[in-house]
Amino acid sequence: MPNGTPILIVGSVALDTVETPAESVAEVLGGAASYFCLSAAMFAPVQLVAVVGEDFPSPHRQLLEANHIDLAGMQVRPGKTFRWSARYSGLRLENRLTLDTQLGVFADFHPALPPRYQDARLVFLANIQPELQLEVLSQARHAEFIACDTMKLWLDTARPSLERLFRRVHCVLMNDEEAVQFTGLRFLPAAARAILAYGPRAVIIKRGEHGSLLFMGDRVFAAPALPLESIKDPTGAGDAFAGGFLGAIARAGVIDDTVLRRAMIYGSVLGSLAVQDFSVTGVAEVDLGEVEARFSTLVDMISFAPTREAP
Amino acid sequence: MPNGTPILIVGSVALDTVETPAESVAEVLGGAASYFCLSAAMFAPVQLVAVVGEDFPSPHRQLLEANHIDLAGMQVRPGKTFRWSARYSGLRLENRLTLDTQLGVFADFHPALPPRYQDARLVFLANIQPELQLEVLSQARHAEFIACDTMKLWLDTARPSLERLFRRVHCVLMNDEEAVQFTGLRFLPAAARAILAYGPRAVIIKRGEHGSLLFMGDRVFAAPALPLESIKDPTGAGDAFAGGFLGAIARAGVIDDTVLRRAMIYGSVLGSLAVQDFSVTGVAEVDLGEVEARFSTLVDMISFAPTREAP
Repeated sequence: MPNGTPILIVGSVALDTVETPAESVAEVLGGAASYFCLSAAMFAPVQLVAVVGEDFPSPHRQLLEANHIDLAGMQVRPGKTFRWSARYSGLRLENRLTLDTQLGVFADFHPALPPRYQDARLVFLANIQPELQLEVLSQARHAEFIACDTMKLWLDTARPSLERLFRRVHCVLMNDEEAVQFTGLRFLPAAARAILAYGPRAVIIKRGEHGSLLFMGDRVFAAPALPLESIKDPTGAGDAFAGGFLGAIARAGVIDDTVLRRAMIYGSVLGSLAVQDFSVTGVAEVDLGEVEARFSTLVDMISFAPTREAP
Repeated sequence: MPNGTPILIVGSVALDTVETPAESVAEVLGGAASYFCLSAAMFAPVQLVAVVGEDFPSPHRQLLEANHIDLAGMQVRPGKTFRWSARYSGLRLENRLTLDTQLGVFADFHPALPPRYQDARLVFLANIQPELQLEVLSQARHAEFIACDTMKLWLDTARPSLERLFRRVHCVLMNDEEAVQFTGLRFLPAAARAILAYGPRAVIIKRGEHGSLLFMGDRVFAAPALPLESIKDPTGAGDAFAGGFLGAIARAGVIDDTVLRRAMIYGSVLGSLAVQDFSVTGVAEVDLGEVEARFSTLVDMISFAPTREAP
């Protein structure tokens, strides 16, 4: 189990059914929190806050436990685990059609932090209702770096809560379209400034296969995406990115500009791993050697250094 | 007039009519070669091979001359200058609809290199019929670094010539969709390898606001695009990119991995300038100080260095 600052994460654990033109899978382990946890766990201890139903398959629980995820905060409730299904299409599976969402036990979920979680200094609020993200924050009183994700649905339906949330976090992760929609500003620098005006130190704009941008003050860092030979299932790429990002920060143990920029690259690494297999397999089965190799490849992609000579 | 290796360029000089939701312009200076020349000219001498009609407005000629473009190879023929018109739409003007193309004197164009052009070591073949690009090459026998651009039309209608061309050049520039269409391969690393297999040393995949990728051997360099506060007219961005890229190579006077990577950033700079005004204004009116400032901003976007302290 890695050392490093523990990361507290709240988010969905789900059973996903995913169709792609090439292949389909049913009721596999999914949910933002699952992708995040397994991506972050190779860098630092992870404490999960989530809910599953009594039908949650024990192999899934065992996978999380085998990766040293602390499940004390994962409630098991009578009823069904959150289920989500989607179909991907397009040249590189860039189009997603959500086919079904069954909240199950997630409908009545209220996060409750076990006592040992309450000292968490690093917190990730994965995409769930902003009200629930705020409930976690009210219990995590020692948080020093809080990052949050969100989704289009909450921009439309829970804007006041989202604004309250943005005033309390240090880093907001959004995709390109969400940032434009939330701010009403078409161009990213202005959209990022509008989000930074709520108070966060950093805004990360995720752009899928085009990489991610980190806006901090008047500086921008551009983390490339790894050009991939194939994509099996785009599900969870953003959550895996967040897991790599927070994981790298936790492992570094300090937070400065350089650490955040390097953490963006680790985010890119984990995102690239997530999409190369169905479910969480890409991030669960990788070893740290492969993670560091992809990190080096990405750093080389933005370096001016000449080709290394063979020894 | 800058020192540096002269660049020989062949391509279209046109009169463009462009509509955007905010503003429209009619019969302004356009064409790939115009954007290229004015972008490259601040780095190195430029020798233009092109054709215009007797109606070509003298202010346009004067603008090119004022920027020290050698026009000895620009033929003036009886008839009309090439005209092109298009309408842009979308959030950031990402959709282009070509409304009209009138070849005019371009229909019977055959490039003829003035004697002093025939020693050119750096050659850029902007997007024109591959047969004409090959005609230029047959006259430029001392070329040491040849780069070419193309467009979707030629992938469909002139594939054998394009393949012949790719076997003779050192660098191919294409956009994302063209590379996929030409190779039939959905993922960029495989598409790039397929193009490199024709013989070029480098393939550049342009992705507009998402930056560009340079594939060389098994290395990739990712040049970010500058996140812009506004876009007025996307026309010519790729040609300005090529102008900055070849210009920086010409100024460096040597061609190695590091020079090519830095040249990608200069390409990004000139692309960013081109789209911020109509016609060639963005690249024609900029001074080298602004170019270098944008270069520094882009380099900072891919650097891990901590914030510079105020002195």
